[in-house]
Amino acid sequence: MDRRSALRHAGIAGVLAAGAAPAVHAQSAVRWRLASSFPKSLDTIYGAAEVFSQKVRQLSNGRFEVSVHAAGELMPAFGVVDGVQQGTVEAAHTAPYYFFGKDETFAIGGAIPFGLNSRQMSAWTFEGNGLKLMREFYAKYNIVNFACGNTGAQMGGWMRKEIKGVADLKGLKFRIGGFAGKVLERMGGVPQNIPGGEIYQALEKGTIDAAEWIGPYDDQKLGFHKVAPFYYYPGWWEGGLQLDLYVNQKAYDALSPENKAIVEAAATFAHVETQAKYDAKNPSALKQLVGAGAKLRPFPADVMAEAFKQSMKLYEELSAKNENWKKVYGDFAKFRSDQNLWFRFTEATFDRFMQAQKL
Amino acid sequence: MDRRSALRHAGIAGVLAAGAAPAVHAQSAVRWRLASSFPKSLDTIYGAAEVFSQKVRQLSNGRFEVSVHAAGELMPAFGVVDGVQQGTVEAAHTAPYYFFGKDETFAIGGAIPFGLNSRQMSAWTFEGNGLKLMREFYAKYNIVNFACGNTGAQMGGWMRKEIKGVADLKGLKFRIGGFAGKVLERMGGVPQNIPGGEIYQALEKGTIDAAEWIGPYDDQKLGFHKVAPFYYYPGWWEGGLQLDLYVNQKAYDALSPENKAIVEAAATFAHVETQAKYDAKNPSALKQLVGAGAKLRPFPADVMAEAFKQSMKLYEELSAKNENWKKVYGDFAKFRSDQNLWFRFTEATFDRFMQAQKL
Repeated sequence: MDRRSALRHAGIAGVLAAGAAPAVHAQSAVRWRLASSFPKSLDTIYGAAEVFSQKVRQLSNGRFEVSVHAAGELMPAFGVVDGVQQGTVEAAHTAPYYFFGKDETFAIGGAIPFGLNSRQMSAWTFEGNGLKLMREFYAKYNIVNFACGNTGAQMGGWMRKEIKGVADLKGLKFRIGGFAGKVLERMGGVPQNIPGGEIYQALEKGTIDAAEWIGPYDDQKLGFHKVAPFYYYPGWWEGGLQLDLYVNQKAYDALSPENKAIVEAAATFAHVETQAKYDAKNPSALKQLVGAGAKLRPFPADVMAEAFKQSMKLYEELSAKNENWKKVYGDFAKFRSDQNLWFRFTEATFDRFMQAQKL
Repeated sequence: MDRRSALRHAGIAGVLAAGAAPAVHAQSAVRWRLASSFPKSLDTIYGAAEVFSQKVRQLSNGRFEVSVHAAGELMPAFGVVDGVQQGTVEAAHTAPYYFFGKDETFAIGGAIPFGLNSRQMSAWTFEGNGLKLMREFYAKYNIVNFACGNTGAQMGGWMRKEIKGVADLKGLKFRIGGFAGKVLERMGGVPQNIPGGEIYQALEKGTIDAAEWIGPYDDQKLGFHKVAPFYYYPGWWEGGLQLDLYVNQKAYDALSPENKAIVEAAATFAHVETQAKYDAKNPSALKQLVGAGAKLRPFPADVMAEAFKQSMKLYEELSAKNENWKKVYGDFAKFRSDQNLWFRFTEATFDRFMQAQKL
């Protein structure tokens, strides 16, 4: 219910009885629950939902409140799409690629191997066809989505042994997030699905050979450098992971136009703020990790080339059998081609020059 | 006045007389005027202020309206700082470096030669000390600032003749924006200050030898490629020009907490949206320009090296004589160093790989 109709429904008698302002507030309150796919310990990525909630409260002067619940509190981390679809919660904050098992198209809204970088993903979402196409797709799940954070290009993960070439991926038990495992498999690797809290022990015991998580700031907390010192880059499967706010369609439709604008603006504020947080926090974490013995290594050229080739083959196969994928990926791929054409000139040349200076 | 106090002031009698909702609206209305430094023809950069205004209206359900006025409508393009400082208008949208003549520190809030790229500038603003330090500085001008758009790395401009090395800059009459002219001068160039609408004719007649404007999308409209075909990159003096919303301190202080949050969220929405617009529109403009005869050229290595050297010398000199500069630049430079350390690993490697593929 919006503020105007609340006033109308409360009626003048109610306003007089309760005192004008409090009556307006009580009557028009919107209360939502948001299920995050992340634990509270990830202040960056979990924090995005808290920033969203805080901005909604400020923008509505408390008329609209969103309570934020960590993974497992209301439902499992990977139960949030079902939760929003069924209306168990009004909203969720998650990484779309977790749900590629339902439909691979989910992954495009988060990150796919050799996809867009953070800024390009924002461009596709806000000014390309990204938001429009993903919303058409999400409608099947009763979801209205909003960009709500990006991690930037992630690191390629921690290896117990060095990777000298594609051959070293054969049989490599690699804890890797969701969709990227499909490409790793095609290169002979063995993707492992292990929750964040159990990775350290698995690496230490040698149950797994490698694990990727996010980037220096988040990784440092889990201490992987102590048991798997080779820290690879780039995370070619997440050149810019966009996080999404999912809103249940009915809950969204029930909002006043003002509250709809509040959801969009609060999510967009969290979107900017989250990328800024990662960028501001990663450099000193990287320095500390290297100081503590982490050994930075680029993926060998043949690993990158083979991963790219296998990814493009996978995308072709998906386009042949999944109509949703075909439609969204077709537009995404065209946009990616244009973005890389443009970025290679002034953006890349400026960045490369700056990175080569002693600053 | 905020909504609650408006209700209180209107009194129950007023509410009864006018009908609840309209009375609330009429009483609590906030009306602002915003002076842009840009002409309406720049739908990108002028458009940022329109997006801001639209979001303020939506977020407040029309209780808060900002009218947007193009450069020259209320005051000259470069009169907007005085306008906000004196309270002639409540707000302005501008490129901070225009005002380096008042104090060079203004430039840091927009772009300085060899500064931060777009994403790094957001990180400094939202999660570094950027906003805090710039607000301390702007307080002297009765200004509260908000990030409100970024152009991304700009192009290096249009030259009638090729630049083969530093020697070719000697005596070069180059239309270049504000602060960067100080570096060009040290390299023998002759910076020219010419409004956008007069550049084409000056280039055609040979009154000037070169001109920089923004990037492909904005430049294309002015047709420079027809009279100065060599299109240089990168625009080392604006690796990411951040635009600012300036708000008069008193006008800001008079806002309710809710309206303060609305100003911040609306500006931040315009911030994301403007960069996305540039990224989405530049690629096809670049292709069309090249198709129409524009010749893309990187600045020679010795030009880049000398420009960098002269810029760092200038910053040292400014630090010795301008306390404001010293304080803000000191923090900015430390942040830049950390950002470039971090970006050179996973971000740059991912981007470089993608730019090298046939996509």
